Amino acid sequence: MKEQTHGVRLNDEQRIDWLRLFRSQNVGPRTFRALINHYGGARAALEALPGLARRGGGGTTPKIYSREDAEREIAAARKLGVTFAAIGEPEYPNRLQVIDDAPPLIALRGHLPALAMPAVAIVGSRNAWAAGIKITQQLAHGLSEAGFVTVSGLARGIDAAAHRASLETGTIAALAGGQDRVYPREHEELLRAILPAGVALTEMPLGWEPRARDFPRRNRLISGLSLGVIIVEAAKRSGSLITARLALEQGREVFAVPGSPLDPRAEGTNSLLKQGATPVTEAADIVAVLQPIMGLELPAREPEPKDDPIQDAEPASDERARIVGLLNPVPVSIDDLIRLSKTSPRVVRTVLLELEIAGRLERHGGGLVSLV
Amino acid sequence: MKEQTHGVRLNDEQRIDWLRLFRSQNVGPRTFRALINHYGGARAALEALPGLARRGGGGTTPKIYSREDAEREIAAARKLGVTFAAIGEPEYPNRLQVIDDAPPLIALRGHLPALAMPAVAIVGSRNAWAAGIKITQQLAHGLSEAGFVTVSGLARGIDAAAHRASLETGTIAALAGGQDRVYPREHEELLRAILPAGVALTEMPLGWEPRARDFPRRNRLISGLSLGVIIVEAAKRSGSLITARLALEQGREVFAVPGSPLDPRAEGTNSLLKQGATPVTEAADIVAVLQPIMGLELPAREPEPKDDPIQDAEPASDERARIVGLLNPVPVSIDDLIRLSKTSPRVVRTVLLELEIAGRLERHGGGLVSLV
Repeated sequence: MKEQTHGVRLNDEQRIDWLRLFRSQNVGPRTFRALINHYGGARAALEALPGLARRGGGGTTPKIYSREDAEREIAAARKLGVTFAAIGEPEYPNRLQVIDDAPPLIALRGHLPALAMPAVAIVGSRNAWAAGIKITQQLAHGLSEAGFVTVSGLARGIDAAAHRASLETGTIAALAGGQDRVYPREHEELLRAILPAGVALTEMPLGWEPRARDFPRRNRLISGLSLGVIIVEAAKRSGSLITARLALEQGREVFAVPGSPLDPRAEGTNSLLKQGATPVTEAADIVAVLQPIMGLELPAREPEPKDDPIQDAEPASDERARIVGLLNPVPVSIDDLIRLSKTSPRVVRTVLLELEIAGRLERHGGGLVSLV
Repeated sequence: MKEQTHGVRLNDEQRIDWLRLFRSQNVGPRTFRALINHYGGARAALEALPGLARRGGGGTTPKIYSREDAEREIAAARKLGVTFAAIGEPEYPNRLQVIDDAPPLIALRGHLPALAMPAVAIVGSRNAWAAGIKITQQLAHGLSEAGFVTVSGLARGIDAAAHRASLETGTIAALAGGQDRVYPREHEELLRAILPAGVALTEMPLGWEPRARDFPRRNRLISGLSLGVIIVEAAKRSGSLITARLALEQGREVFAVPGSPLDPRAEGTNSLLKQGATPVTEAADIVAVLQPIMGLELPAREPEPKDDPIQDAEPASDERARIVGLLNPVPVSIDDLIRLSKTSPRVVRTVLLELEIAGRLERHGGGLVSLV
């Protein structure tokens, strides 16, 4: 990304453009990146959106986040003590920015230096037993002593226990809603207690009430912020198992606390152990695995093909038809599309952007796309 | 071994000689094998024992098991329904005979065809909780249904639960004492219940009261009889962990049942999981691992160097001194002794036998020996 220079800040104008682009309809983290790469910057991408949508054939024009809305959100955030960090800026957590679908902007609140510390996520069931709470406390205390911050989702049960046990040394709460829409409500006080030494972060706008589907999306931030994820208690179909899967996809370590085969709260963790997760009974087990990899370079994200940031010539309509004809709801790789459509990479990427902005295309990890 | 031909039976005279040699002082399973290899048969080895002991420099002559004692043991055994199987005979369990220190003779009682079935050991703590007992029952039932016999040590707790849950389909009890010295006494009735479909076996003589050190020795039979060993519950320093280690040394699978980090009965099993044991919550987990290897050839034991079974020329005393000078309580390999002493393999092996029979040398796995 031309505007994304590591350790360099966006100026105020650029930040407004980034926020507008990210908050516009049909622009997820992967689309955002594709747009910036294609157009060289957020401003140019914003200007291209209506044309892309029209050519992509969406029935209605996608809603573009207005300059006024963006300025209002930034001002309201400032009042709450919330700042926005763009991917590549110094405040943006290092580990998070290497995941495939890192949010281009995150809203941060609290003691931001905590984001620079090595982090381990602790997650588990909401209806945790006393035993699970106690193990969580022991693990969190041990990790704090070893210099780690904890990461979790502010949920009831294991999440809350993990945050509470590391309030003094630092803990990071990744939210599924806006910074002013804490869920569950009863944890508003816990969140306030987190902020002096820790951080609350989210990619969602102020005022956003979290819906069910926002939690799995949020879970990628929990694992993405962390060197590893510990699953303390998890029943068979638990949201924590989603976090474990995301952690694996992101190349993070997965730890599971063993439990009795007779305990339904351990079905998920025992099943993770069978799949190769590292068994954990005390913090030392985690430190032993993570300390050797703490100093290592972050895995480099695959280099993106960069287009010349010049205004597009529109793809010819037969080119567009050829590419659309190759797409269906089964994800295919962009490389295959380029090869099979016998058109230039630039044309393929332009057509994909059109379809995305029109709400007709989904971008997956690993360079795969599918029709919605 | 000349006398050890697979699938061929010893005659009565040979069986008496084998029993005498195996029951003679300072003749363990490894020494037995070395003697048979060296002298070509048990009779010749028995005749060589006094000379070997004298030249080996033991203070007293080791006690040789008399012909009368052997005949009396065989007759008494027959009355109890106990037969002796020699390594290589059809009744001798296939898997057991490939372990490094397989007993040359085992005393068997019960339904001997059970020894030909695929076997899985289930072991664990003696002071088991209801939960451990229940898991043991579930595993044993599942394994029975899948066509496995269980193997265990007739101890209180997990062992007894494993036997009890598989009485009908077959279970094997490996004893640390003689066939007429069941330990603990309260399990005499359980043992009787095992015999109609299962087997009790031991390498110890009739009348032998098991001592503490006989139990770890017995544990190698539990793992040696089995494709894999399941540890259900085990505290930190549990005898079951010895069985797990022996199983690993013998190339058998090690399974451990996970438990809560807060449960001291799971410390041993969780620690095995951390070392790479396969986590198990149901019988299907074991079947999935073992079924693919059930049809495989047994691992071949390293071929032994066979000496010509001719009567020894005594080693020259300077040769003997050179070899003894290279030995100390730290195990060294016989190959190194041959190389460093610059004497023939035959002379080195003769001197080692002398020292063994004199009670001055111990033979370990992997061709290692040390002074006692």
